[in-house]
Amino acid sequence: MNSERFNRGLKKLTAIDGDAGANVIETLKDVSPDLAQYTIEYAFGDIYSRPELDVRSREIASIAALTALGFAIPQLKVHINAGLNVGLSETEIKEIIIQMSVYAGFPVALNAMNAAKEVFNTRKVKP
Amino acid sequence: MNSERFNRGLKKLTAIDGDAGANVIETLKDVSPDLAQYTIEYAFGDIYSRPELDVRSREIASIAALTALGFAIPQLKVHINAGLNVGLSETEIKEIIIQMSVYAGFPVALNAMNAAKEVFNTRKVKP
Amino acid sequence: MNSERFNRGLKKLTAIDGDAGANVIETLKDVSPDLAQYTIEYAFGDIYSRPELDVRSREIASIAALTALGFAIPQLKVHINAGLNVGLSETEIKEIIIQMSVYAGFPVALNAMNAAKEVFNTRKVKP
Amino acid sequence: MNSERFNRGLKKLTAIDGDAGANVIETLKDVSPDLAQYTIEYAFGDIYSRPELDVRSREIASIAALTALGFAIPQLKVHINAGLNVGLSETEIKEIIIQMSVYAGFPVALNAMNAAKEVFNTRKVKP
Amino acid sequence: MNSERFNRGLKKLTAIDGDAGANVIETLKDVSPDLAQYTIEYAFGDIYSRPELDVRSREIASIAALTALGFAIPQLKVHINAGLNVGLSETEIKEIIIQMSVYAGFPVALNAMNAAKEVFNTRKVKP
Amino acid sequence: MNSERFNRGLKKLTAIDGDAGANVIETLKDVSPDLAQYTIEYAFGDIYSRPELDVRSREIASIAALTALGFAIPQLKVHINAGLNVGLSETEIKEIIIQMSVYAGFPVALNAMNAAKEVFNTRKVKP
Repeated sequence: MNSERFNRGLKKLTAIDGDAGANVIETLKDVSPDLAQYTIEYAFGDIYSRPELDVRSREIASIAALTALGFAIPQLKVHINAGLNVGLSETEIKEIIIQMSVYAGFPVALNAMNAAKEVFNTRKVKP
Repeated sequence: MNSERFNRGLKKLTAIDGDAGANVIETLKDVSPDLAQYTIEYAFGDIYSRPELDVRSREIASIAALTALGFAIPQLKVHINAGLNVGLSETEIKEIIIQMSVYAGFPVALNAMNAAKEVFNTRKVKP
Repeated sequence: MNSERFNRGLKKLTAIDGDAGANVIETLKDVSPDLAQYTIEYAFGDIYSRPELDVRSREIASIAALTALGFAIPQLKVHINAGLNVGLSETEIKEIIIQMSVYAGFPVALNAMNAAKEVFNTRKVKP
Repeated sequence: MNSERFNRGLKKLTAIDGDAGANVIETLKDVSPDLAQYTIEYAFGDIYSRPELDVRSREIASIAALTALGFAIPQLKVHINAGLNVGLSETEIKEIIIQMSVYAGFPVALNAMNAAKEVFNTRKVKP
Repeated sequence: MNSERFNRGLKKLTAIDGDAGANVIETLKDVSPDLAQYTIEYAFGDIYSRPELDVRSREIASIAALTALGFAIPQLKVHINAGLNVGLSETEIKEIIIQMSVYAGFPVALNAMNAAKEVFNTRKVKP
Repeated sequence: MNSERFNRGLKKLTAIDGDAGANVIETLKDVSPDLAQYTIEYAFGDIYSRPELDVRSREIASIAALTALGFAIPQLKVHINAGLNVGLSETEIKEIIIQMSVYAGFPVALNAMNAAKEVFNTRKVKP
């Protein structure tokens, strides 16, 4: 678990999302450290580290897709946090979610908006 | 079919995607002009006309979601075209599609990339 | 938020589902009153207000679709309530859910049936 | 392949959809007669033969679900035909499809409407 | 509820998954004993009772599909238990889940792995 | 494109599926050689190369998931071919597809069975 791709990925994930990298590793450490490793190596070491798209655009894409899929609420919350960290405003994130009503219907948009509300509130409570 | 929302939507759709507005209306005119109307009124007259998110970001979100859903290839092609029209490069569009392998798997990314290839080639042929 | 479409939608939603209209607005008021507005305007002001299909048939369609999608349990519960309000029997609602095992498999049918059980029980408790 | 459930199912399927029963058996006879048998036994011998819901309501549910799923166009066409056979009007079928834009987004509704157009046109050509 | 198919199904389900058969019947008995019956008759009395595929391979297929679908966590847990009962190791089950990241993305794999962790822990606690 | 992971992946893919590796690279070479590279590196260089699960079990899992997803027919065909190459019989592959009717409904099973029929027929024609 100390390949170049893993180290680059963990650094990228930490830069985007603070503790999230450590959390993924921590949660999976007893059951599947390998899946944690692949997530960090491929998603962040390979893809997010490519210069072809800026990280703000990447987070727009991730929030849109995770909203549209409908069943990926835990990952959506991670990326709403990440989106705020890389400079998306709450208004822009809500707007992406509203737009998804067009492509995947109102239920996914409503459920995603409730997830966004939770993330926004949690961040307000934290110092 | 001449409400303010419809007119604003058709203007927006035409600005983003050239003939696509006329095409949606044309294809559906014998079977369901009402569905064409709602698509244009809600998607473009309401949502895409909101100032909360720039149109480049909106097309990133749409391309990401339509790739991730996996079954919306015709609409994905429309939005790959739209993305190019509003300033996304081919490289950026391909990058959004590659990123979707992380969130929805390689099959949707591969099928979307083939759709992108078709759109890119069609545009090269046209003067 | 007082357009003709919104007012017609809220009236329709209230007629079908009692407090649900107020609830949607209430839940979203701090995070996205705009999404509440679009839901009510488009889903109920536009679509459910059209005379082309009776409201009983509309609720059959909604319960079927929300069951088949698999990830829209909160919205399914709203429409199971709505279905009962517009005259579907518990037996008919359960039958729609059973039928979905054919088109989307047993897991979605089992999860939807548990949601129906909750809704039925809640209504029995209320005076 | 001559159980009571199979015979009841084939009779029900033929009553609803004319040649469709024979077609399912014919298409699968070289590759999987067993899957044809299960489809007819379970979907039509068991479920559609239950008296708890009238066949018009069943076809509303099936058209709604198959539209919302997005990837089941061949089966959607079968059930648009079936819906017309059991008394749904073209207008009602189009209305179910339009309504699905609310629950599963515009792409599934647009693709389903094109499928409906094909079915309607094919029936007009046939004597 | 005492057809030959039901009895064969219940026996098969009990053989694979211990109490799960009784649990399905128990949970649904107040709301839809018919859906419990169909689940047991069709899934286990018909399909799982066929000799064309060994039960170990069947559980690999079920765990893979339920992971990939993303919204079927309760059923996934049942089949992780069933997989362990028919001889799959924890390592093999985790490997199937990891593999699903390729076909349906990392979010479904991560959510499925957390479900697996719960099942593994529950079994460790039980005598 | 000549990393150790890529080379191991291409070798594994070629071992399982003959020309498929070359085909993926060929089809994508004008539009996105990077996506071809990631597919081969991650899916085959990383995952399929792990010893934790035999390749026969891996193909069962892939065929099940690609059937259940419903929209991944091109990839399903690749893996039906791969399944036959690694020792699954036509009967076993058809059985996996039939089983998916339980978890994801009859439409996905019927569409997958038609895909299997095509693959089986193509292989019979080839010497």
